[in-house]
Amino acid sequence: MTVQHSIDQKWVYLFEEGTAEMRDLLGGKGAGLAEMTQAQLPVPPGFTVTTEACNAYAAEKQFPDGLWDQLMDALKVVERKTQKGFGNAENPLLVSVRSGASISMPGMMDTVLNLGLNHMTTDGIARSSGNERFAYDAYRRFVQMFGRIVLDIDGEHFDSAFENYKRDCGANSDTDLTSEHLRDIVATFLEIVENETGAEFPQDPYQQLELATKAVFSSWSGKRAIDYRNFYKIPHDLGTAVNVVAMVFGNMGDSSGTGVAFTRDPSTGEKTLYGEYLIDAQGEDVVAGIRTPSRIAELKRVMPEQYAEFLSIAERLENYYKDAQDLEFTIENGKLYMLQTRSAKRTAQAAVKIAVDMVQENIISKEEALRRIEPNQINQLLLPRFDDRAREEAEGLGDLLGSGLNASPGAASGVVVFDPDQAEKLGEEGNSVILVRPETAPEDVHGMIHAKGVLTSRGGATSHAAVVARGLGKPCVAGVEELDVNVEQGFFVIGDRKVEAGEEISIDGGTGQIYAKRLPTIDPNFSEEKDLVTLLGWADEVRNLGVWANADYPRDAQRALDFGAEGIGLCRTEHMFFEEERRPIVQRMILAAGKATRLEQELQQEIERQDQATNTSTTDEAEILKKRKEIEESADVQDYHDALSKLLEFQVEDFKGILKVMDGKPVIIRLLDPPLHEFLPPYDELLVDVTKLRLASGPSDELEAKEHLLAMIEEMQEINPMLGLRGCRLGLMYGAINEMQAKAIFTASVELVLEGFNPKPEIMVPLVGHVNELRLVRLEIEAIGEAVQEKLGAQVAVKIGTMIELPRAALTADQIAEHAQFFSFGTNDLTQTTFGYSRDDAESSFLLDYVKRGILEENPFQVLDRDGVGQLIQTAVERGRSTYQDLEVGICGEHGGDPSSIEFCHQTGLDYVSASPFRVPIARLAAAQAVLGM
Amino acid sequence: MTVQHSIDQKWVYLFEEGTAEMRDLLGGKGAGLAEMTQAQLPVPPGFTVTTEACNAYAAEKQFPDGLWDQLMDALKVVERKTQKGFGNAENPLLVSVRSGASISMPGMMDTVLNLGLNHMTTDGIARSSGNERFAYDAYRRFVQMFGRIVLDIDGEHFDSAFENYKRDCGANSDTDLTSEHLRDIVATFLEIVENETGAEFPQDPYQQLELATKAVFSSWSGKRAIDYRNFYKIPHDLGTAVNVVAMVFGNMGDSSGTGVAFTRDPSTGEKTLYGEYLIDAQGEDVVAGIRTPSRIAELKRVMPEQYAEFLSIAERLENYYKDAQDLEFTIENGKLYMLQTRSAKRTAQAAVKIAVDMVQENIISKEEALRRIEPNQINQLLLPRFDDRAREEAEGLGDLLGSGLNASPGAASGVVVFDPDQAEKLGEEGNSVILVRPETAPEDVHGMIHAKGVLTSRGGATSHAAVVARGLGKPCVAGVEELDVNVEQGFFVIGDRKVEAGEEISIDGGTGQIYAKRLPTIDPNFSEEKDLVTLLGWADEVRNLGVWANADYPRDAQRALDFGAEGIGLCRTEHMFFEEERRPIVQRMILAAGKATRLEQELQQEIERQDQATNTSTTDEAEILKKRKEIEESADVQDYHDALSKLLEFQVEDFKGILKVMDGKPVIIRLLDPPLHEFLPPYDELLVDVTKLRLASGPSDELEAKEHLLAMIEEMQEINPMLGLRGCRLGLMYGAINEMQAKAIFTASVELVLEGFNPKPEIMVPLVGHVNELRLVRLEIEAIGEAVQEKLGAQVAVKIGTMIELPRAALTADQIAEHAQFFSFGTNDLTQTTFGYSRDDAESSFLLDYVKRGILEENPFQVLDRDGVGQLIQTAVERGRSTYQDLEVGICGEHGGDPSSIEFCHQTGLDYVSASPFRVPIARLAAAQAVLGM
Repeated sequence: MTVQHSIDQKWVYLFEEGTAEMRDLLGGKGAGLAEMTQAQLPVPPGFTVTTEACNAYAAEKQFPDGLWDQLMDALKVVERKTQKGFGNAENPLLVSVRSGASISMPGMMDTVLNLGLNHMTTDGIARSSGNERFAYDAYRRFVQMFGRIVLDIDGEHFDSAFENYKRDCGANSDTDLTSEHLRDIVATFLEIVENETGAEFPQDPYQQLELATKAVFSSWSGKRAIDYRNFYKIPHDLGTAVNVVAMVFGNMGDSSGTGVAFTRDPSTGEKTLYGEYLIDAQGEDVVAGIRTPSRIAELKRVMPEQYAEFLSIAERLENYYKDAQDLEFTIENGKLYMLQTRSAKRTAQAAVKIAVDMVQENIISKEEALRRIEPNQINQLLLPRFDDRAREEAEGLGDLLGSGLNASPGAASGVVVFDPDQAEKLGEEGNSVILVRPETAPEDVHGMIHAKGVLTSRGGATSHAAVVARGLGKPCVAGVEELDVNVEQGFFVIGDRKVEAGEEISIDGGTGQIYAKRLPTIDPNFSEEKDLVTLLGWADEVRNLGVWANADYPRDAQRALDFGAEGIGLCRTEHMFFEEERRPIVQRMILAAGKATRLEQELQQEIERQDQATNTSTTDEAEILKKRKEIEESADVQDYHDALSKLLEFQVEDFKGILKVMDGKPVIIRLLDPPLHEFLPPYDELLVDVTKLRLASGPSDELEAKEHLLAMIEEMQEINPMLGLRGCRLGLMYGAINEMQAKAIFTASVELVLEGFNPKPEIMVPLVGHVNELRLVRLEIEAIGEAVQEKLGAQVAVKIGTMIELPRAALTADQIAEHAQFFSFGTNDLTQTTFGYSRDDAESSFLLDYVKRGILEENPFQVLDRDGVGQLIQTAVERGRSTYQDLEVGICGEHGGDPSSIEFCHQTGLDYVSASPFRVPIARLAAAQAVLGM
Repeated sequence: MTVQHSIDQKWVYLFEEGTAEMRDLLGGKGAGLAEMTQAQLPVPPGFTVTTEACNAYAAEKQFPDGLWDQLMDALKVVERKTQKGFGNAENPLLVSVRSGASISMPGMMDTVLNLGLNHMTTDGIARSSGNERFAYDAYRRFVQMFGRIVLDIDGEHFDSAFENYKRDCGANSDTDLTSEHLRDIVATFLEIVENETGAEFPQDPYQQLELATKAVFSSWSGKRAIDYRNFYKIPHDLGTAVNVVAMVFGNMGDSSGTGVAFTRDPSTGEKTLYGEYLIDAQGEDVVAGIRTPSRIAELKRVMPEQYAEFLSIAERLENYYKDAQDLEFTIENGKLYMLQTRSAKRTAQAAVKIAVDMVQENIISKEEALRRIEPNQINQLLLPRFDDRAREEAEGLGDLLGSGLNASPGAASGVVVFDPDQAEKLGEEGNSVILVRPETAPEDVHGMIHAKGVLTSRGGATSHAAVVARGLGKPCVAGVEELDVNVEQGFFVIGDRKVEAGEEISIDGGTGQIYAKRLPTIDPNFSEEKDLVTLLGWADEVRNLGVWANADYPRDAQRALDFGAEGIGLCRTEHMFFEEERRPIVQRMILAAGKATRLEQELQQEIERQDQATNTSTTDEAEILKKRKEIEESADVQDYHDALSKLLEFQVEDFKGILKVMDGKPVIIRLLDPPLHEFLPPYDELLVDVTKLRLASGPSDELEAKEHLLAMIEEMQEINPMLGLRGCRLGLMYGAINEMQAKAIFTASVELVLEGFNPKPEIMVPLVGHVNELRLVRLEIEAIGEAVQEKLGAQVAVKIGTMIELPRAALTADQIAEHAQFFSFGTNDLTQTTFGYSRDDAESSFLLDYVKRGILEENPFQVLDRDGVGQLIQTAVERGRSTYQDLEVGICGEHGGDPSSIEFCHQTGLDYVSASPFRVPIARLAAAQAVLGM
C-alpha cells in the first residue's frame, strides 16, 4: 500500500481549524472536538493528527515528512493557550493521546493520560498543585498506562506489583496510599519497564509523544482491528487519527469531577439526560468500577451551576447533530470542560424510539428517521434475545462453547435433543428443546417445529435447517465446523467440551454463538412496539416495492399478515407432505409412481398408435381394452392413484386454509419441487439395516421388505440431487402429481369463491430451464382448471407463472415470458447454479473460508451477488417484460429479506420482494431506504 | 394443421412439366423422373401428385378441391401417350403408384404395381400380350400387393394361401404354376380380401387409384414415419408426393428384363457401373431374392445395345447431377425405360472416395467435396465397425438385446466382465473384454483401458464412462435404462435375458445397440485412408478454427497428432493420479490434506500475528519455533508432504512425456479438478464392510482402520459433489497441491528446454467463478515458476488461463480476463450449471425422455445449446476480448467434437476446438464446413 502525499501536506489540525464535516480526515472524536471548539464550547486546547498520516505511516513505517514539525507547531499553540510548557519542570503541560477513527471499532489503542510526566515534571506538578500525592498518583498511572499500552508490556506485571505493595503496606484501597507509597510504586513500575523492554522508561516527553502517536497508528494494523474490519467489511485504508489534548483534571478535589452522559436513554430511548459522574476522579475511574459513580441527576444538586451549563451544552449538541449524543466531561476546580461528543450507541428499541420522537419533536424528517435505523436491528425487536448481562457473565465463566453461521436470528435455551421425534414429544409436553443435528432434512421438520432452536454442524445460510428455521421464526446456528454430533450415542463434542443429550444449552442465531447453559431471554411483542409500527407505517408511504412473505401454513401466513405482508410470494407445498399422517401416503405414492407412470404411458402410446393406423381391427381394440384393464388393476397403479386421491383431499384443505387467511391478497403456490427421495428413509441407514439383517437372521419378511425398499431408493438415488429429477421435471415425468396439485388449488379456490371469499391463487412452476417445460405444464394446469371450474360451477382467476432459478431461464426469459404471467426469482438456486456452489455443502466446506480470506466479499447465499446473479436477474426482467409488459416480477429466495439485496431489487424494478415472515418488517424498512438512496 | 391453398392450385404435374429443382414439391423420385423426361431420356409417361396435396389431405382428411380432376386430366395424357386406356378391356393402361418424399425415409408406403387390373382388363392383357399366364400372374401380384399395402391386410394371409396352393398342386417354384393355377389363386386372394375387409376387392381401376393415392398420403402420418421424423428432426410438413407411372414390363420374355445399378460402387466408391439385373422379371423380383440376379456387366454381353444406351444414360445423369446415381431400369421387349434416378446411398468410405475422385475428375470443386461428407460418417473410417451382414443376421436371430445411449462410437465384442481389476487382467492376457458396470468412476479406468468396450446402465453423453471411452477411442454404450447390472453376483439382466460374466456380447457405440453374441468387426487404419487424408488436407486449407485434442497421456497425444491435432486443449491431470502405483500415495495425501493444511495455516497466522504486534518478546518467538517443530513433526503433515513430493516426481515425468510428444505445439494442462473423495474407496461399500465387521468380530485392527477411513470419507462426502469442493477451490483450500502441480509443470518444461526441446505448456485453472480465485492461484503459480526457472537456470514461456465452465465466469469474463491469458470453455460443466442438469444423473433419468418428447430439441450434452449455453459463450468471448484483445479462446468440452457445435464455435470466433483424438478428423472437416456455410 503506497500513499501519495505532497511535501507541504497538512498532517495536523488544531481543534479550531477543524469542523464536524472533516470526520474522515480527523476521525469522529477529532471532528467532534473541533466542532465543539468552533461552537465556543469549553474544550481543552488540543489538536488532531490526521487519518492520512496514519495511512502514510502504515505504508512507510515512519512518520511522513513534515508531520513531526507540524505536531511541534501545534503543541506550541497548546502551550501558549494553557500557558504551560511541555516538559517544563515548573509548569508542565500534560496531554492525553487518544486514537479516533471515522467509525468506532474495537482493537484500537486505549487512551494514554498524563503524557508528559517524568521525574522532573512530576515534581513540578507537585509543587504547582501543592498536592504531591496527586502528582505521584498521576505519574504512577501514566507509567502503568504507557507501559501497558504503548510499550506492550503485560498489564499483569503492574497490577500484581501494585497489589503486592498494597498488601505489604497494609493499604485497603488506593486512597490509603500516601505520596511516599506512590513514589515507591513508581520506582517499582519503572523497574518493571526496564526489565520487560530492556530499556529505561522514556523520560523525554517528546519521545513519549512520538512513541504514543506511533502506537496509535500501529494499533490500526493490529490483528484484532484487521479481523474486525474484515468481518464488518470496513475498508482498511480509512486509518485512524490521533488526538492530543491538554489534560484537565477531575481529581483535583471536591470542586472537581468527571462523568459521561447520553442526551437520551440509550436502552429505552426515553428523552432524559442519562449518565454518571464521580467527584474527585479521573475519567478512567468512572469506567473502572472501583468507586460507584452517582447518577447524573445528582450533579444538579451538588454543582447546580456546572450542571445547568452541561445541560445546556448537551441540548445544543443534540440539536446541532440532530441525534442523541454520548458526552464526556470533566470539571477541574469548578470549571466544566467537554472532552467528547459523539453519536450515542443505542439498542434497537432506543434507536426506533429516538428516531420516531425526533420526528415528532420536529428535529428530523420522517425520511431521516427511516434512514437512521439499520434494518437488521429490527430483528431484535421481533425475536427473543438474551439478557446482555447474563450473556456477558456466561462468557466470563467460559461458557461460550463456540460459534457457527448465524443462520436464523433469535435466541433460545433448552435441553439438547438429537432425535426429531423426541424433540416433538418433549416440545409438546412443554419443554424447551434445542434440536441438534449434523444437518436437517424435510423429515426432521416436525421436530424443528416443536424445538425452540436448531443447531447443526453442516449446512449454510440456505441449508434446509436455516430456511425452515427462518420460516418458523426460530433461531438456528448452522455449519459449526468444530461441532461433532454423535446422534447414535447421544452427545456432541465441541472443542474440548462434551455435551450429553438432556443438558441445557443456549444458542443465539443472530450472532451464531453457542453457550453451555440456560440464559434468560427477553421476549418481544410486535403489536406493542408502537414506535416500530409508526416507523414502518412511514416506510410503507415511501417504498415502491411490495413486501410479501414466504409461508407454507395458515399460521405462518397470519403472522406474515400481522407483520404487514401484502401477499404470499412462496408457499412450498412439499412441506405439507411431511406431516406425520401424510408421510406414509406420500411414500406409497412415490414408490409406485415410476412403474405406474410407465404402464400408463405404454397404454397411451398404444392407443395413439392405433389412432394413427389407417385401419383399426376389432382385435386391436379388444387388446387395448384388455391392456387397460390389466394396467388399471396393477398394484402400482392402484397404489399411486389411491395415494394421490388421499393427498388431493389434504391439499384442498391446505390451500383453502392459506387462501382464506390471505383473502383478497395474492398467494403464490409452488408445485412440488424437491427430489422425491427426500421423502423416503435415508439410504445409508437402510443399507446398514439390511446388512445387519442379512448377517443376523437369514431370509425374513422384514429383510425382504427392506431389501425391496433399498432397491427402490437405490434406483432413485442421484449423485447430484440438486441438479436432478426435481422441480417441473417431476411433474413432466409423473404427470399425475401436477394434476393432483392443480386440481387441489382450483378446487380450494372455487369452493372459497362459492363461500363468498376472494382467493387470489397463483400457480408457480419450479425449475423451468426451457420454455417448453412451462408451456406443457401450463397447458395441463389450464385444462384441469377449466374442468374443475365447470364441475363446481364458479370461476376464479388463477395466474400461472414460473420461478426463474436457473441461468438458462434468465437468459431465455423472453421466450419463457410468452407462457408466464409472473416470474419469481428463486435466488437460492440461481446463486447455486450461477456460482456452481452446492447449497447443501459449500458453506460447511470452502465458502466461509472464501469470505474470510476476501476471495468473496460476501456469502452470496446471504447477500445477492450483483455482478453475476444480479446480472442474470436484470437480463431476465428486461427480456421478460419486453415480451409481456404486465409481467409480475418478484423474488422469493432468502435474499428477499436482506437489505442490500432488497436495494438491488428496487433498483432493478421488481414489483415485490418476498421474505420469511419475521423479516417482513425489515424488508418494509429496507424497501423504503432503497427509495431514499441509502 | 391447416394448409392454405387456392382454388386453382396445381396439385398434379406431368413428368414433362417438372424439373430437378422441384424436389420439395414433387419429392425426390418425381423430380428425378421429371428431369429425366425433360432430358429426353426414355421414361415411361406418368405424373406426380404434389407433397402439398399430401399436406392438404392430412389436414382435411379428404382430397383437396381440384385434385381428382387434375389427376384425371393427367391420366388422359398418359393414356394418349401410351395409346392405352385406363380400365379399357381391350388395351388397358396399367400404372404403378409409388410414394416419394423429398428425403428418403422408412415407413412410407411400398410401391403398388400393375394397378388398373381387374377381371376384364386382365383378360384384355392376356389377349393383347398373347400370354395368359403373364396376365394372371400380374393380377395375382396386384391383388396381393394392393391387399397388403393399400387395404392393410396381414400379408401372411396371402403368403400362406399361396404356399398351401403350391403344396397342394405339387409346384416347387412359382414358375411351375400354370395360368389355370394362377386364376385359382387370384380367386382365393379375392376371397381373402372380402373376408378381411368385409367388402369386395375394388374392381374399378379409378377406385383403385384413389385408394392407393390416399394410402400413400396416410403412410406419411403413420407411427413409424412419425417416430423416424421425430428421431431425425425432420419437419412433419414436408409431405410425400405420389408418382403414377405407366407400367412397363420386364417380364415379357427373354427380350425383357429389369435391374438396378449405381454409377459407382456404393461400398468402395470405385468408379465402375455396379448393379444387378434379371431377364424376364419385374422389379420386385430383383430385390425379393427368389432368383439370383446377374451382375450388370453381364448385360453388355446379353443385350449390348441396351447396355450401351444405359451406360450412356448413367454417365449423362451422373454428370448432370454431379453425384453418383442409383438407377432403376426396365427393358420391355428390347426397349430400355428409366424408372428412377437418385443420389446413391453409400458407405462412408465410398462417400469419401467418390467426393475425392470427382474433384480429380473435375466434376465438383474441393469445397463441394467437403460439403458432401457428413462429418460423423468419418467415424466409421477410424473405428472398428461390425460387418453389416453379420449384424443383420444377429438381429434376425433375435440377438439384439436392447439399446442405450450411443456414448462413444466404434464396435467391439468380448466376454462380459464386471470387475475392472479382472478386466485389466484378462485384457493384459490378450482377451477381448467388455466391461459392464452400473456406471464407472475414475478408479475403474485401468479396467476400461484394457477392455475393448464399456457398457453401463447409468450416465449419459458426458458421464465418466462416455468421456473416458471417447478419449480412449473405445466404444461405449451408456445409460441403458432397462439394463440391470448385478456386479456382486456377476450377471446382468436386460429385458427377459440374463447374461452371466464370461459370456460374449457385442456393443456398437455408434448406434447404442447391444448384441448377445460375438460379431465380427472390421478394423480401420487411418494412414491407409488416402482419400480421407486428401479430403482432410483440403479441409485444413479452408478452415479458420484450430483443431486441438483432449489427451491425458503421451500415447493419446501421439494419436491425436497422427489425426492432425495442432495442440492439446485439455490434459486432465487427475487421470494420472489413478494409475495403480500412485493411488495409495494419492489416498495418503488426501487423507492427510485437511489436517495438515489446518495446522500449517494456524502456524502461518500465528507468525503473521507476531509480525504485526508492535513488540515481539523472545517468549513469543520461542513459542513459534516450538509450534513449528510440533507441526512439522505431526504425522499428517509428514504424510501430506511425503506423498506430495512422490507425486511431484511422477508428475514431472507425466508432463515431460506429453510435452515432448507435442514439441512446439501448445499443451493445456488443467490443475487437479475432481472432488477428492473420488480418489477414495466408495462410501457405501465401506459402510457395509464396517457394519459387517462390527457385527461379526467385535473390535479389531481391521475394523478400527476401516472405521477411521469411513469417518474420513464421511467428512469429505458432499450431497452435490459436482457443485462442491473441486476445481480451483481445491487448490485454494489445499495450496500444496497446486504448488506441487505448478512445480512439476515448470520443472518438466525447463528440463525439456535444457534438453533442446520447445515445450509450450499452458496452465489451466479449473472452475473459476470469481476473478479473485484466478488472481490468487495465478500469483502462486507465477511465484513457483520464477523459483523453478531460477533454480534450473533456464526460461520457459508458460501461459496461465482458466476454464470458463460456470455461468458466473462467463458473465464476469471482462473481470476474469484481466488475469487470464486464455479461456477454454468447459461446456460439459457449463451446460450442467446453465440448465441445472446433473451430468451424472440427468441422462439416465429425465433428459432422454425430454428429447424424445420434443421438450428439448437435442441432448444439450451432445449438441451445444445455442440459446442458453451459447449465449453465455458469446458473452464471455466478447467481454474477455474487450479486456484482453489477444486472449486465446477455445472449447474443450465434449462439444468440441460435435459438428453443429463446431459450427457455432466458428461463428462465435473461437480460436480452436479441442476434441477427443478420434474426433479430430471429424472436427477438421466440420470446421471447414462451418466456413463453407453448411
